[in-house]
Parts: sequence; C-alpha cells; structure tokens
Amino acid sequence: MSVLALSGGIGGAKLALGLYRTLPPRALTIVANTGDDFEHLGLSVSLDIDTLLYTLAGIDNPETGWGRKNETWTFMAALEAVGGETWFKLGDGDLATHIERTRRLAGGERLSQVTDHFRRCFGISAEILPMSDDRVRTRLQTAEGWLDFQEYFVRLRAEPIVREISYAGASEARANPGLLAALADESLEAVVICPSNPFLSIDPMLSLPGVRAALRACRAPVIAVSPIVGGKAVKGPTGKIMGELGLPIGAAAVARHYEDILDLFVADEADMDDVAELGIPVKLARTLMVTLEDREALARAVLTAADLGV
Amino acid sequence: MSVLALSGGIGGAKLALGLYRTLPPRALTIVANTGDDFEHLGLSVSLDIDTLLYTLAGIDNPETGWGRKNETWTFMAALEAVGGETWFKLGDGDLATHIERTRRLAGGERLSQVTDHFRRCFGISAEILPMSDDRVRTRLQTAEGWLDFQEYFVRLRAEPIVREISYAGASEARANPGLLAALADESLEAVVICPSNPFLSIDPMLSLPGVRAALRACRAPVIAVSPIVGGKAVKGPTGKIMGELGLPIGAAAVARHYEDILDLFVADEADMDDVAELGIPVKLARTLMVTLEDREALARAVLTAADLGV
Repeated sequence: MSVLALSGGIGGAKLALGLYRTLPPRALTIVANTGDDFEHLGLSVSLDIDTLLYTLAGIDNPETGWGRKNETWTFMAALEAVGGETWFKLGDGDLATHIERTRRLAGGERLSQVTDHFRRCFGISAEILPMSDDRVRTRLQTAEGWLDFQEYFVRLRAEPIVREISYAGASEARANPGLLAALADESLEAVVICPSNPFLSIDPMLSLPGVRAALRACRAPVIAVSPIVGGKAVKGPTGKIMGELGLPIGAAAVARHYEDILDLFVADEADMDDVAELGIPVKLARTLMVTLEDREALARAVLTAADLGV
Repeated sequence: MSVLALSGGIGGAKLALGLYRTLPPRALTIVANTGDDFEHLGLSVSLDIDTLLYTLAGIDNPETGWGRKNETWTFMAALEAVGGETWFKLGDGDLATHIERTRRLAGGERLSQVTDHFRRCFGISAEILPMSDDRVRTRLQTAEGWLDFQEYFVRLRAEPIVREISYAGASEARANPGLLAALADESLEAVVICPSNPFLSIDPMLSLPGVRAALRACRAPVIAVSPIVGGKAVKGPTGKIMGELGLPIGAAAVARHYEDILDLFVADEADMDDVAELGIPVKLARTLMVTLEDREALARAVLTAADLGV
C-alpha cells in the first residue's frame, strides 16, 4: 500500500500523524511545503518540515502546535539580553534542528537529504519529502507592500490584508523528483491533500513545474480534506485570506480551488449544506482533530473513501 | 587612572575581575586573546572574550570556569539526537552570544564592535578589546600533526605532546588599534599581564606586529602575574606545555619568557625560592584566587606594586 500526503504545518501534520499511525509501516510518503522556509539569525528554518518531524516523532508541543514539547527558552532570553532579534521564537531544542540543518546545507547536502537524515534520527518510518530542494518563498502583497511569509505570519500576526500571493522561485524550481516519481508510480493508491491552508501551504507545491499536471494525470484518487469546519478555518488565516482574495469563505470554495485535480473532497459534517451542490464527489466526516483518536478516525475515513480498507 | 590588562580565559579573567572591581569606573581596558577563537557549527565562537564578558558581568559559571551560570543544555541534548557534533559543549544561553556575534560579523561589523556591543549589553564599564579584528589562530604541532587549538584543548583534552606552537595569521594581522594607542598613551599607568597561559593566551598577542615593541617602549610598568603556584599551573596545561617545549617548569621560567618586556614579576609566595635569583624585580603575593576577595586582594597587590595606591 502506498499513500502520498501533501501537508503544510499544524493542521496538515495532525492528519499526517493519523495516516502515519493508521497505514502499514513505510506505506506513507509526506510532501512538505517549503514556501514558509526562511533564513533567520543566519539559520535555515523549515517550519512545516519541522512540525511534521516533531509531530510524527511524538515530540511536538500540543499546546502551541509548533515547536517541541519539554522545550526550554534560555537561548531566547539570552538573545534578548544582547539585543538580538526575538520576534521569532526559537526554543533551545528546536535550535539544534536549525543549526544542524544549516551546517549540513552549508556542507553541500540537499534539503531532502537533510530531512531524510532527521526523520531517521527521529525514528520516523514515513518518508518526508520537501516539495523542492530549490528555494521557493511564499510572499504576500498587502497594503504594506510585499511581505515575506514569516514577516506577515509571525511578526505581523497575519493581520495585514492580503491582495495577492506569490511563490517566488517556484517557476524555476524543480519539484522533488520523489514527488513526481510517486505520482507516476502505478502502485500509488491515494493522494491526500491534508487540511492545510490552500494558499499558504498547498498552492506552493502546486505552483512547481509539473506537479499540477502530474496530479491530474495520476491514476490514484486525489482526495482533499477540508481545512474548514462549520464555515470557518479551524486555526489560522485561511478564512480571512479567502475573503481578502474575493473568494466565498467556506468548504465549497476550498473544494473549487482544487477542482482541476480533485477526485474527492472530504468535508466536515457541519458543512453539509455548503458542499451539497459542489459537482465534485464529497464525503462527509468529522474533520475536527482534537484527540489522537480524532486524527486516526479521520485518516481511516479518508483511506476508506479511497477504497483502501485499513 | 588607566590600566591595561592582557588576558586569556579562566585564570586571566579572575584577575581581570579583581582589577575591574578595584579600579575606578572606566579605568580598566582588557585586551582579550582571540587565538582560541574558532568556527563551530557555523558559528563564530570567541572563548576568551566570552569568559571575560561573563566573568565581568557576574554571569560566569564558577564551577566550570567557562560558560554561564544557570545554564540549560536542551540544545546539546537535541543536537546529539540528530547526530550533530557534540564534543564542544555549547549551553543554551551561551549559544545566544555566538549566534548574535555570527550574525553581526556576517553583517559587516568588526569583532571589536561586536565585543563592545556585548559589554554594553552586559553593563560592563571596562573596555574589552579583542587583540585583533583579523583572524589569528593558535595551532599546535603534536605527534598527531598540526592541530587547531580547540581540537587540541577540548576534543583531545590537551593530551597530545606539543612540539611547537604557531599563531596562524598573526604576522599579517593588525593589532587592535586601541591596544597600540593605549600602550602609547602618556596617561597609561600600568600594563598587567594576567596569570594566563603564556604560550596559549599571551603569546598570540605578543606575536602581533608592533605589540612587543610597543610593550618595550611603553612608559608604564609592565607587570606579569605568575600563572604558576608552588611550581605547578593552577589549572590547565601550562606546566605540561613548558616541559614539552623543553623549558624548566616553574614561575621563574615564565618570568624569563616575558623577560624583554617585563618591569616586574608578581610570583606566588610559594615560589619564593624559584624566583630568588631572577634578575627581574619580583613581588611576592598570594596569587591563588579562590574567592572574590582573593581576586581583589591580588589586584590591589599588583596595583600597589605599580605604585598605584588604590
């Protein structure tokens, strides 16, 4: 059995964990968004990759949704004391990931090699593929001009109104060969688009040369799980951005956003009316993932919908 | 009143603290060895500067003699888990210094500017000057070939037998202009060579163009404080290296090592016999610095010997 999941950070990682715990060992490959990656304090930070690593390793911080559990913050306090930049919080343990990644990249390793090294160290049997080894950066046009993703998302708390989103470098970047190979593989049985922000987490992948076409051509069903519950985003600015971009805010609009690549849309039961006349096959499920059981139940619902009895 | 102190790490920083607490505000300028500096995990690490900063700021770790007190070690544990290099211990708070230094150097600041920024952040009124803004690296020829300083000192615990020591880059480096200006200043009242390792901490400074000549020409008395107590180094490999370099091990041999620049040698009372026929003026004192009071008492003894009533 072979399943490919496309995921951003928090919400996506929750379902990725559910899939990971539900599928047989090595059946799952997760493609991670790298549009959120950035360089901070001289370090290469890959937020979504790290959230996936920490979540699948069971060392994620369930309270924040990012970073590590049992984290300490001595570094940040000391950095503040010497006048360093403290708007982006880096825990002491989390720093090790960034420093080791930066060191390995500087030594000539590709991001996919570094990521694979990390997932082995963390004892994760699923493959985690960065969407590309090339630099792609999500940028947002706002009333304050073009902003880098973390500038917008963390420093400005996603408050500026978004007019346009671009994925700088995407058109020249090469999609991870592992992603394209998986999509072309006859044995692939499902592609799951995790309940991540469509514009900030999934579109960066779809903007890479060949990825959208490969998803369209893919024999396995492509299934998106709605990040909207009861008309609202579970977390983060998905709804806010949809409104700012002039889209209707809701599950149906997310499904239509993926229309050309989708075989099935998994919507929350609370959005039954919104997706009633979608024109894309829909499966209703409870998509809110609070407990570990929720994650596994949603994963099973998705895999069952893909005709994969698990 | 104006006093210049030349210092390495641990032992030197103890006397530097004594001088700092004994002299009037802003009377003290400390020149720090940078031959121990190195690049580790992509970070610029300046051991002796940091030991001086932490010691004068009162945040040094009195148990180890290096690093910070109330330190946490989450980073090192996490780095080990991802297969990183862990032979050199970097505490979580200490990391902030290295990351901020590296960021500022990459931004074009000189090491002396970064150091001055730090000492202001730490509320230190003494100036701390890196011996040079240029790269000088202490290297040691051993049976295992030429070793970088931290390789020899930390990784190999100063165990290899030293045949020769070089200060790579010293002959092309420019001594800190503040050091040469201080030595030429008519108002300078004393130069104190702290009880640091002569070969590893002080000689790197003396090997910089113009420094030895400036010390010889200096009007103020040049006073070295012995790092030897009762024929043995208080800490570290001073005695071991003296033997390996074919020198007699003891206070008198240290004094002779500095002979051409020295006006006065402060030896420990326990080495009275060793320095009896030195041919250089000697003052005996209790040089072992265990308590804060010891540091201040030795500082007063040195300053009194320089005819500076404090």
